[in-house]
Amino acid sequence: MPLKALALNATLKTSDAEDASSTDRMIGLIAEAMSAHGVVTEVLRLADFNVKPGVTSDEGAGDDWPDIRAKVLDADILLMATPIWLGQPSSVCKRALERMDAFLEETDEEGRMVSYGRVAAIAVVGNEDGAHHVSAELFQALNDVGFTIPANAVAYWVGEAMGSTNFVDLDKVPKVVTKAIDMLARNTVHLAGLLKAQQYPGEGN
Amino acid sequence: MPLKALALNATLKTSDAEDASSTDRMIGLIAEAMSAHGVVTEVLRLADFNVKPGVTSDEGAGDDWPDIRAKVLDADILLMATPIWLGQPSSVCKRALERMDAFLEETDEEGRMVSYGRVAAIAVVGNEDGAHHVSAELFQALNDVGFTIPANAVAYWVGEAMGSTNFVDLDKVPKVVTKAIDMLARNTVHLAGLLKAQQYPGEGN
Amino acid sequence: MPLKALALNATLKTSDAEDASSTDRMIGLIAEAMSAHGVVTEVLRLADFNVKPGVTSDEGAGDDWPDIRAKVLDADILLMATPIWLGQPSSVCKRALERMDAFLEETDEEGRMVSYGRVAAIAVVGNEDGAHHVSAELFQALNDVGFTIPANAVAYWVGEAMGSTNFVDLDKVPKVVTKAIDMLARNTVHLAGLLKAQQYPGEGN
Amino acid sequence: MPLKALALNATLKTSDAEDASSTDRMIGLIAEAMSAHGVVTEVLRLADFNVKPGVTSDEGAGDDWPDIRAKVLDADILLMATPIWLGQPSSVCKRALERMDAFLEETDEEGRMVSYGRVAAIAVVGNEDGAHHVSAELFQALNDVGFTIPANAVAYWVGEAMGSTNFVDLDKVPKVVTKAIDMLARNTVHLAGLLKAQQYPGEGN
Repeated sequence: MPLKALALNATLKTSDAEDASSTDRMIGLIAEAMSAHGVVTEVLRLADFNVKPGVTSDEGAGDDWPDIRAKVLDADILLMATPIWLGQPSSVCKRALERMDAFLEETDEEGRMVSYGRVAAIAVVGNEDGAHHVSAELFQALNDVGFTIPANAVAYWVGEAMGSTNFVDLDKVPKVVTKAIDMLARNTVHLAGLLKAQQYPGEGN
Repeated sequence: MPLKALALNATLKTSDAEDASSTDRMIGLIAEAMSAHGVVTEVLRLADFNVKPGVTSDEGAGDDWPDIRAKVLDADILLMATPIWLGQPSSVCKRALERMDAFLEETDEEGRMVSYGRVAAIAVVGNEDGAHHVSAELFQALNDVGFTIPANAVAYWVGEAMGSTNFVDLDKVPKVVTKAIDMLARNTVHLAGLLKAQQYPGEGN
Repeated sequence: MPLKALALNATLKTSDAEDASSTDRMIGLIAEAMSAHGVVTEVLRLADFNVKPGVTSDEGAGDDWPDIRAKVLDADILLMATPIWLGQPSSVCKRALERMDAFLEETDEEGRMVSYGRVAAIAVVGNEDGAHHVSAELFQALNDVGFTIPANAVAYWVGEAMGSTNFVDLDKVPKVVTKAIDMLARNTVHLAGLLKAQQYPGEGN
Repeated sequence: MPLKALALNATLKTSDAEDASSTDRMIGLIAEAMSAHGVVTEVLRLADFNVKPGVTSDEGAGDDWPDIRAKVLDADILLMATPIWLGQPSSVCKRALERMDAFLEETDEEGRMVSYGRVAAIAVVGNEDGAHHVSAELFQALNDVGFTIPANAVAYWVGEAMGSTNFVDLDKVPKVVTKAIDMLARNTVHLAGLLKAQQYPGEGN
C-alpha cells in the first residue's frame, strides 16, 4: 500500500486569487519528487477553508478544521508549506498549528498522541530572509504535537536580502533547491515507511 | 495633551466567550499603570473583528482592519498583547502583524513609515513557557514596521513547565510581574513623550 | 549490540565549579530512562574542553572538537543539553552546533552527511521561560546538519515567570517532567534502532 | 559633546585571520553613516579577547569582559554585529549577550539597570538566510538587559537561499542595504540623543 501525504498550503491567498502561489509551486515540486517514491500527495489550501480560531479539534458550527484534521491523520506524511511574512510563518500556518495543539490531549491508552507514527516536512518560500526561523518554529510546534522529523526535512527558497522576486516567477528552479527537494523527499518517504511498519512503543514498554 | 495607547488583545476567544481572558487581565494591569502617567488606553479584542488575511492596509469588502489601523496610527503607544500557544504568539496576533507589513511601503516624502514616532510594548501570558520567544518575534516584527521599543518593553506571566494554571485565575499577581508592569509603563510613556515631541528626522537630514 | 548515546552538557560551568549543574541532573534522568532500554550514555561537559570558534571539523592546535566530534559520530543518539540564558540556548551550546555546520560538506558519494542515521534529542533547564524557543533553535540546527528528530524529543524544566529556583535544587522532579523524560527515551531509542537497521537511502535511490 | 558608539564584531575569526570579515565591512559602513551625524565609533572584535563563559560582570583571572563592559557603558550606542551560522547568531555574539545578563541585577536606587538610556542597533551578515531571526533574538536579549531599540534598528545582507557569496566580496553594496544603513544611523543617533538628554525616570516617578 502506497504512502499518503497531505500538503497544507498556508498562503494568505485563496485559490481564486489572480496571482499564482509561490508556496504552491514549491509544494508541486516536492509532491513530484515524493511521487517518484510512490507517494500520493493531496494538497489543501488553508485559506479556502474556515479554520476557526481555537485549540480544540472542533470549534463548532462552520468550522472546517475537523475535515482537514481527518485528512492529516489519514496521511503518513504532513507537508506544512508556508510563505514568509516579516521573517515569520504566515498567520494561516499558525492557525493550523494551533488547532493541532489538541493532539496533546488526544492520546491512546498507552499515552501516544493520535499523530504518532507520522512524519512532517516543511516547505518555505519568500521574497527574502526568514526560512531558517520558519523551519525552527514549525519543527518545534510539529514535534511538540507528535510528529517525527526526518533528516533535512525542509526545502526553501528566498531571494537576496530585501528582494522582491517571487519563487513562482523564477524561470528556473535553482539546482540547490532541486537537490534539497530530492533529499527531503527521499528522507521523508524512507522514515514514514519505517514508522508505518514499526510504530513507537507506548507507555509501559 | 495626554498620550494615547491602543492595546490589541490577540486572544483566540471573542468577547462573548464564557472564560475570562488572561491576556485581558494583563492588559488591564498595564493600562492602569500607564494611566498613572496620564495615558488613556483603548482596548480592542482582535477576535471580535474580521481581520482578513493579507499584507495590504485594506483587503476589501468586510475587512475590519482599516478601522483598527486608523486607531493604531491615532495612538502614540501600541500595546500588542498575546497568549502563548505551542510556545509561540497566537495566529490572531500574527494576522495583525502581517497587516502592518503594509507600513513598509507607506512612507512620507522623507522615507519615514506612517508608524514612525510610535512606541510599542508587549504583553504575554500563557500557562507555561514561551514568553521570551514571543517577545523576540514581536519586537522584531514591530521594529521592522517602524515602531520604537523602550527599555524592558515586555510584561509577561507564565507558569512552571507544562503547567495549566491561567493568569486570570491567580489570586494575586506576583510582585515580580507588578514590578515589570510598572517598569514597562514608566519607560513606554517616557519614550513615547520624547518621540512625540521630537520625531525621527527623514532622509536628507 | 546496544545503542550508544552521547550527551553534551552545555552549561557555562566547568566540572570543578562548586554548584551542581541543573543540566547535569536532567541528563542523568534521561540517561537513566534510556538505560532501561539498553542504551549506554556517555556525558561530556563542553565547558571542560577547548572547543575553538569556527565552522570546520578541526580548527587546529589545541582544538578539542575533533575528539568530541568522533564521539558524536560513534554514537547513535545525540542528547544536546543546555541551560537557558536570556530565553536562549547557551553560547557553549551554540559553539558545538557551529562546529557541526561542517557536516553540511561532509557527505558520502551518495550525498548523505556523516551524521545521517543518527537521532537527536534535547534537554533544557532554566530558572524560567525559554524552553520552547531553545528546542526550536536546536531542532532546526540539528536537523540542518543531518540529525533525525523523534516525536516529542525534548524534556525540559523551567520555573514560573522570572523565577530563580534551579532544577538541581528541586526536592522532587515533577511528574510531568518524568513523563516527558520517559516519552523522550522511548521514542528516541525506538527511532535510533529503526535508522540503525535501515539507513536513509542516498542520491540516485 | 558628540555621541559615542561601540561596535562589537562577533565574527568567529580573530583579527589576524587571512580572510576579511564581512561583519567588519558592514560595521564600517554603519560607522561611516553615523559619523555623518557626529558619532565616533570604536570597534572591538570579540574573538580577539578572552570573554569567559558566565553571567556575571567579572569571571575572574584572565577575563577580558570587564574592560569590554566598561566600554559598553561608556558609549551611548551599542552596535551588535554578528555573522549568521545555521540561521542563528554566532556563539561569540551569544557569549557577549550572556555577560550582559548581569545588568539585570545591576540597578541604581531607582531600579534602573546600568545600561538604561543607551540604544542598541544590529548588523547581520551571512551567505544566506537568517537575518530576521538574528535580529529577533538580539532585540529581545538587548531589550531584556535594558537597551532601547530605535525604529528600523537593523541593517543586514544575506544572499539567495543556500548561497555562498560573502558580503565582503560584493563589488557593490546593494542600494537597499545602503538605504537601510542610512535609516539605522539616522534613527539610532536621534534616539540616543533624546535619551542622553532625558534619561528614563526611576521607580517612584
